[in-house]
Amino acid sequence: MIAEQIKSAIRDIPDFPKPGIIFKDITPILKAPQLCSNIVDAFVEQLKGIRVDAIAGIESRGFLFGLTLATKLGVPFIPVRKAGKLPFTIKQKAYKLEYGTAVIELHTDAFEPGKHILIHDDLLATGGTALAASELIKEMGGEIAGFSFVVGLGFLNGKERLQPVSENLIVLADY
Amino acid sequence: MIAEQIKSAIRDIPDFPKPGIIFKDITPILKAPQLCSNIVDAFVEQLKGIRVDAIAGIESRGFLFGLTLATKLGVPFIPVRKAGKLPFTIKQKAYKLEYGTAVIELHTDAFEPGKHILIHDDLLATGGTALAASELIKEMGGEIAGFSFVVGLGFLNGKERLQPVSENLIVLADY
Repeated sequence: MIAEQIKSAIRDIPDFPKPGIIFKDITPILKAPQLCSNIVDAFVEQLKGIRVDAIAGIESRGFLFGLTLATKLGVPFIPVRKAGKLPFTIKQKAYKLEYGTAVIELHTDAFEPGKHILIHDDLLATGGTALAASELIKEMGGEIAGFSFVVGLGFLNGKERLQPVSENLIVLADY
Repeated sequence: MIAEQIKSAIRDIPDFPKPGIIFKDITPILKAPQLCSNIVDAFVEQLKGIRVDAIAGIESRGFLFGLTLATKLGVPFIPVRKAGKLPFTIKQKAYKLEYGTAVIELHTDAFEPGKHILIHDDLLATGGTALAASELIKEMGGEIAGFSFVVGLGFLNGKERLQPVSENLIVLADY
């Protein structure tokens, strides 16, 4: 099963990025090409029957499987970036972090209104960034096809925040 | 030809990130799934006969085609990240920018000594970051399999800086 394959590859790093946090390090997954291929196949399988016109990957680890999956599905890839990185005209969305705020940006021509956009990142924690991305996409006239994550930290209740936005919420390996 | 396909997709953005710079915006490439697929195929073709044990992709746009290519070739992907992002024990390398310095990092277990590592990024400008990555990989006992870029800005002489490191220098579309 893909969940077990992912969990057996992930490495727990205590006290990163700060004391008390156990960080889920996905770099061992990236070192396992067959597992990477299986992850993409698992996303494709779970997306069957769901209309996906484009994949929006969140900088920077959402760029990894995001483009690989988009290329496999034959749909456009849209980078969701931190402030100041996208060179064309942009729309932005500020959102709250545990301490302070962050801003994400999309190009104004990232997609046509009415398109169904799948939001992708490697890891679902509180879901704050993915939720902000979904709000920005909706403000720009897009529909939310769903969310896809390689790993989820269930105890942070990200699913509960995102499920009202879309019932298509894929987490391949949930803790 | 792949070079023409890439150049016809790229968008010039004047005065980004600062006045006088014409930025090559690759986001229209990412919106063209067939072109993304062709780019990966072109890398695979040009890498024939070259030993590649792993691909090191430079944060964050080197994550895009880097993982897609690694998955296609069936080799590990190694993230080369900015300071403070990698959670495990790291080795780092400082290098000069036009103004000031930057630091890149690799996990100490990113690869075994003697492995041939291909360095990948979306765009070759002065080559400073790719050169620093190659020096860090060599300090850690790796060999440089070569360099691969989607786009090159020939007038910035990046090729001249990297060619002494490896003659395997792939630039799909050079300006």
